[in-house]
Amino acid sequence: MKFNFQTVADIGEFGLIDRIQKILPKADHKDLIIGIGDDTAVIRIDEHRAMVVTCDIQVENQHFRLKNISPFQLGRRAMTVNLSDVAAMGAQPTFALVSLGFPKSFPLSDFDDLFRGMKDQLAEFSANIIGGNLSNTEKDLIIDITLMGEVAVDRILTRSGARPGDRIFVTGNLGESCAGFYVLEKYGAKYPDEFATLVQKHLQPIPRIEAGKRIVHSEFATAMIDISDGIASDLNHICVMSKVGAEIYQKKLPVPEGIYNVASVSGKSVLDLALHSGEDYELLFTLRPETPDAIIQSIAKQTGIAITEIGKILPKESGYHLIDLNERRVPIQPKGWDHFIT
Amino acid sequence: MKFNFQTVADIGEFGLIDRIQKILPKADHKDLIIGIGDDTAVIRIDEHRAMVVTCDIQVENQHFRLKNISPFQLGRRAMTVNLSDVAAMGAQPTFALVSLGFPKSFPLSDFDDLFRGMKDQLAEFSANIIGGNLSNTEKDLIIDITLMGEVAVDRILTRSGARPGDRIFVTGNLGESCAGFYVLEKYGAKYPDEFATLVQKHLQPIPRIEAGKRIVHSEFATAMIDISDGIASDLNHICVMSKVGAEIYQKKLPVPEGIYNVASVSGKSVLDLALHSGEDYELLFTLRPETPDAIIQSIAKQTGIAITEIGKILPKESGYHLIDLNERRVPIQPKGWDHFIT
Repeated sequence: MKFNFQTVADIGEFGLIDRIQKILPKADHKDLIIGIGDDTAVIRIDEHRAMVVTCDIQVENQHFRLKNISPFQLGRRAMTVNLSDVAAMGAQPTFALVSLGFPKSFPLSDFDDLFRGMKDQLAEFSANIIGGNLSNTEKDLIIDITLMGEVAVDRILTRSGARPGDRIFVTGNLGESCAGFYVLEKYGAKYPDEFATLVQKHLQPIPRIEAGKRIVHSEFATAMIDISDGIASDLNHICVMSKVGAEIYQKKLPVPEGIYNVASVSGKSVLDLALHSGEDYELLFTLRPETPDAIIQSIAKQTGIAITEIGKILPKESGYHLIDLNERRVPIQPKGWDHFIT
Repeated sequence: MKFNFQTVADIGEFGLIDRIQKILPKADHKDLIIGIGDDTAVIRIDEHRAMVVTCDIQVENQHFRLKNISPFQLGRRAMTVNLSDVAAMGAQPTFALVSLGFPKSFPLSDFDDLFRGMKDQLAEFSANIIGGNLSNTEKDLIIDITLMGEVAVDRILTRSGARPGDRIFVTGNLGESCAGFYVLEKYGAKYPDEFATLVQKHLQPIPRIEAGKRIVHSEFATAMIDISDGIASDLNHICVMSKVGAEIYQKKLPVPEGIYNVASVSGKSVLDLALHSGEDYELLFTLRPETPDAIIQSIAKQTGIAITEIGKILPKESGYHLIDLNERRVPIQPKGWDHFIT
C-alpha cells in the first residue's frame, strides 16, 4: 500500500520554485520590471533608475557550521551571498535588512561580531543596514538578509539574453569554495597551509560587484548569473531562460592547482568540483561574438580578477554539453547543490 | 566564581536593538529618509513618492504552533504581520519577498497552502510576491517576509511626532489576540463557541491598511505605530521617540466582553491582556488636540473599524501612567512581549 503523500524532498528546490510560480499570479504592477526567476527582482524607480532586490536565508548546519567560521566571518559571508546576486545584475548595493533568529543561549559577543561582519562587508560598497528583525529560535542560528541595489534602467542584464554564438566567461576560479569546505571537514581549523587559499575562498568569498558593473556597462554583455550552485546548474539557468544550448571546454575551466589534492580526499573528481559545486560566488556571463578582447582584458585589469572564456552558446537543439579532454562531447547534467535532495 | 559571559537573553530584544544601533554607523545615503527604529525604513523614490520596507521573521513554536493554525492561515498571518507595519506608515503595500526554511519532511500540500495563504492576503491589496529563497532546516518552519509599500513623501508619519496635548487613539480591540492564544492553548481546536471571535483574531488578524492610509491623509495625525507587543510597550516607543509622556484611561480601553472569561483561566488580568499582550496588529496613533471629531468618525465609518480615544500625550516630565478605575495614577511598565526574556 502506498500513500500519495509527497514531501518537499520529493521534488527538490527547482521543483518547488516551479510550484510557487504556478501558485502565484503573474505580478502585474507598472513599476515591476523583473519578478521571480532571476538573480534579483527589479523595480523601476524613475525613467533612468531601477532598484534590484534579493533575499537569501542562511541556516546553521545547512549553510554553515559555527565550528568552522567565526561570527564576524559569518556576518561578512551572509552579506556576500546577497551581494553576489546584486553583482550578477551589475548593480550598486545600497540598503540591507537583516532578520536574525538565534537561541537564548547565543553569546552577546557573537551577536555583536555578526553585526560587525555584516556592517564591514557592506561598508566596502558604502551600503548600509536600514532595518531588520530579531527572533528567538530553539537551537539554530538563522540569518536572512534582504539586499537592495541600484542599476540604470538601460543596463539591466538578465539570465535570458544569451544568443547562439555568444561567448561564455567566468570570473575567478571554479570549485574552490567547495574544496575549502572539504578541507575544513577533514582537518578542522588546523588544515595544512597549502589549502589556505581554498579555505579562505570558502569562508570569505568576495562579491564581484565591481566586475558586475563593468560587465553590464561594456554593452557587449547578453546574460549574467552568479555561481551559487555550480556552473552546470547556473549556466543551465541561462540556457533555459534564454532558450539556447551551450558547450563548455573542460581544458579551459579555471581550476586552481590545490584542488587536485582535495579532490582525492573528498571523493569527488576535479571535474565534479568545477561543474557541480556551489558557493564560488563568481560571475558567469555571456558576451556577443564580436566583443573585442581588449574590453575583456580591460575589465580583468581594472578589477584585478582573472576572466576566462570557457565555452560558447549554441542553438537550443544543439544541446548542453562538455567537450572533454579527449575532445568528446559529454552531456552535462544540470545538477547543482540542492539542499532538499542532497 | 562568576564568568562575565553574557547571552542575548540577559539584555532582551530592545537591549539588542540598542546594541545594533551602536555597532552600525548612521546610514548616510541621499535617498534614505528613515533607517532603523521605526515601523519600516523609508527610501525616497522621487520628489513625491517614497518606498517603505520592513521585514519580520516568524519561527515555529516561537510565533506559531502548527497544531493550532493551518498552513493557509499561517501564510495569511505571516503576511499580515508585515502588512501591519506598512499600515502603521500609512502606506500602500506593493511587493513582497519570501524566505522560507522547512524540514525535508515538510508536506508538499502544506508548502502549496502556505504560498496560497500569502498570495491571498496580498491580493486584497493588489500586492505581489516578486522574489524569495528556500532553505532546508533541521526541524522548524521559518517564514521571513520582506514587504515593500509606497507612500507620499509629504505624508510620512513616524513614531516621533507626538506632542503634549495630542489625543491617543486605537483601532479595534485590545488583548483579543493573546486571549485567543490562551483559548487555543487550553482547549485546542475544540474551543467553546463563545471564544470564536478571540481565536479568529489570533489566527487571522486583519492588517489596518485602509485605516492607516486614511489616518495619514487626515493631516491631523502626529505619530503612529502598530500594536505588536501590547500598548504599554508600543505607546512607550512613541513616547521615547517623541520625547513625551502619556496617560491612558483604564475605563476607556476597548476590551471585548469575551476576554473576561479568558482572563480567569489564563492567570492574567484583563488589564494585563489589554496593556501587555501582543499581536493585536491594531493601529495606535496620536492626533492633534484640535482634530474635529467628525474626521475620526468619518475614518471609523469608511473603514468599518471602531476607533477609540484612550488617552493623552503629556510633557515628558509628567511621566507615563494609567488612570485606573478609581482615578488613581499608576505608572505603566513599558513591558511587552519579549521572546528573549519571557
